[in-house]
Amino acid sequence: MNYKELYSDFGKNLNLSIVKELLKFAAIPGAISFGGGVPDPETFPRKELAEIAKEVIENEYYYTLQYNSTEGDSLLADQMIKFFKKVYGVDNLKHENILFTNGSQQAIDLVTRVLLDKESICIVENPVYFVAFASFKTALPTIIGIPLEDDGMNLDVLENVLQNLDMGGKIKKVKFIYTVPNFHNPAGVTMSLEKRKRLLEIAAKYDLLILEDDPYGLLRFEGKHLPSLFSLAGCERVLLLNTFSKVLTPGLRIGTIVGPKELIEKFADAKQIVDLCSPSLNQRIAARYLQRYDLISQLENAIQIYKRKRDIMVEALANEFSDIPNTRWVKPEGGLFVWLTLSEGFDTLEMLHFAKEKGVFYVPGQLFTVDEKPSSSMRLSYCLPPEEKIIEGVKRLKQAVVEYGVKKGLLR
Amino acid sequence: MNYKELYSDFGKNLNLSIVKELLKFAAIPGAISFGGGVPDPETFPRKELAEIAKEVIENEYYYTLQYNSTEGDSLLADQMIKFFKKVYGVDNLKHENILFTNGSQQAIDLVTRVLLDKESICIVENPVYFVAFASFKTALPTIIGIPLEDDGMNLDVLENVLQNLDMGGKIKKVKFIYTVPNFHNPAGVTMSLEKRKRLLEIAAKYDLLILEDDPYGLLRFEGKHLPSLFSLAGCERVLLLNTFSKVLTPGLRIGTIVGPKELIEKFADAKQIVDLCSPSLNQRIAARYLQRYDLISQLENAIQIYKRKRDIMVEALANEFSDIPNTRWVKPEGGLFVWLTLSEGFDTLEMLHFAKEKGVFYVPGQLFTVDEKPSSSMRLSYCLPPEEKIIEGVKRLKQAVVEYGVKKGLLR
Repeated sequence: MNYKELYSDFGKNLNLSIVKELLKFAAIPGAISFGGGVPDPETFPRKELAEIAKEVIENEYYYTLQYNSTEGDSLLADQMIKFFKKVYGVDNLKHENILFTNGSQQAIDLVTRVLLDKESICIVENPVYFVAFASFKTALPTIIGIPLEDDGMNLDVLENVLQNLDMGGKIKKVKFIYTVPNFHNPAGVTMSLEKRKRLLEIAAKYDLLILEDDPYGLLRFEGKHLPSLFSLAGCERVLLLNTFSKVLTPGLRIGTIVGPKELIEKFADAKQIVDLCSPSLNQRIAARYLQRYDLISQLENAIQIYKRKRDIMVEALANEFSDIPNTRWVKPEGGLFVWLTLSEGFDTLEMLHFAKEKGVFYVPGQLFTVDEKPSSSMRLSYCLPPEEKIIEGVKRLKQAVVEYGVKKGLLR
Repeated sequence: MNYKELYSDFGKNLNLSIVKELLKFAAIPGAISFGGGVPDPETFPRKELAEIAKEVIENEYYYTLQYNSTEGDSLLADQMIKFFKKVYGVDNLKHENILFTNGSQQAIDLVTRVLLDKESICIVENPVYFVAFASFKTALPTIIGIPLEDDGMNLDVLENVLQNLDMGGKIKKVKFIYTVPNFHNPAGVTMSLEKRKRLLEIAAKYDLLILEDDPYGLLRFEGKHLPSLFSLAGCERVLLLNTFSKVLTPGLRIGTIVGPKELIEKFADAKQIVDLCSPSLNQRIAARYLQRYDLISQLENAIQIYKRKRDIMVEALANEFSDIPNTRWVKPEGGLFVWLTLSEGFDTLEMLHFAKEKGVFYVPGQLFTVDEKPSSSMRLSYCLPPEEKIIEGVKRLKQAVVEYGVKKGLLR
């Protein structure tokens, strides 16, 4: 059979060849990977989780080994309501405002399906988290990228874009503005409080929904936690995406969408079609963990580990790249990523072959750019490699940059 | 904000109000539910799973608490290859033929997305499993129902339909034929070997793909296991959907798609966008369980439990409904469902209010009919209620039927 003939438009348009190529690169033995946003397994509370898993299977098998409701575990919802109150200062959440998903990616995909059509417009930061971008693209909407600055999205550009859409009679086609306000993936930057407030004003002015993706917010190394858009907006107009993947373990695959009841109900309807429900076992493990331990204080250890790794990477970059002209990077106040930008002319996707030779891996900026054109930037994730490998990896990266740069006539 | 204005066509077309209404009915305290295909928790090997969960978190946390690949656990794939050899007699499967999903429903949804467009045609049995049907419908294709007989799909009708499509130049729009060959959901019937062979011949003649959904095949109470379409076709032209939900536990939410490499790869690409990966923990628990225990012999206990429950239900039906004219039911050779059909004029959706009064719940046939018109049939699931409740539930059902029938002038 010629199976290709069977594909839908969605199937035909799916093209993950770059990602797959990258994954092969990352799997080369001996290579140091600054690739995925993959947590350090030493941060996982394995003893606690092992104990809880055994208990909830033995004692609550009636629940944990059975189908769940599509909305998910109500015990976990109770815990999350407490958690959101503590972390985000939100105190009027109800179960009907919460839907558990199979990781944040499923939340993003549900948003795509329930909100986006071919005629839709969605607005994202540029650079943008590429798997969210890939999900939005499946609906074939118009995606407008707003340049990201060191304190978040350039709101002057955003206002300009919205004004033009409004004048062109297209503002109703805008389904949401997608943002990662804390320790941006890939850019590492955090949106300032001023910009958060102004973004909400702009959204209110044009009656737009905001999709706030906050996987890393709790992983702050220094400085003050900033209020979420969700809490600033008073639980209106904002959908907040959260996940346990970076702060507890990705092995459970639990994401959370928090938002207005009406939208949550629609997402739950979509989830029922998409996979009926998420595993009861995983949700109950998380619920019992949150009941028994204080996630925030448990996280202290992980924060220290990641802070130290960030310091080591930033120091290594300063040591190695001080003599490479026009190289810039953001020192993130938290999260998992450093965004390194080389001088114009560098194409970090092409340069990856040099990096491969040297045994180091990063994610090329092109994957994160809305126009998908060559980029001189790259995302460096410091969370997984051991400390000495970070130093060694940055050295290898420098060698790759020099070799590529010299070959291309970009460096002497 | 008026969130409704934001919905995509998918979002607007999602309508699960009947299902939600039904779920409320099922949750009424004291009601006996013949509703969901929800396994009896006493069939879950809870001690074994509890032990394994603890072990794999403690000893394999590096894997079990981390992100997985989109394709899933290769150790589980090894086990499934052995399993498929043993159960289906398929001996040339490779990892590239297998994708693990978040339950079978995710597999169905991936099939919908990768294969179906608005212009597509798909062919299903009538009655049809309603959540699969609901998934197919989201792509707005033309769905053609083929009447189901006691030995499976009416293949004369199928041939006729295909011939007409072919003559009308539309045969290339047919993306697949969906079938549940063993202990059909909802109809309880099993496709005969003759029909399996002929279905494959027809599919070959028109060069069509078959989607074989087999959640219950292992739950055979009597008679001989019949070869799957997948194995009869030699792993070509057939996608086989499998799940652990009915034979181990639904709490892990592990489904499997087995099929041609090219399609599997495309489904994996789609899954990456949809939720990145399924939980590592759950897959490794299942893998270790299959390594350590023989699922087939472990299942003996569950089979005995369900066989006994089926016998009790069928006997109760014979006792209660022998004096209700034109009432028919299929005694299934396995699986979880009895399909009960009353005489013409009964509308089992409308009758549900009478059943609610009596404290018994079933799934009305209308949900399973392709034209979604009123139906005199209902699906009765015997897997969850305790034995004495099955007898009591059938008694209550009889009362509801009599009251409704008399009121409607269908019975005297």
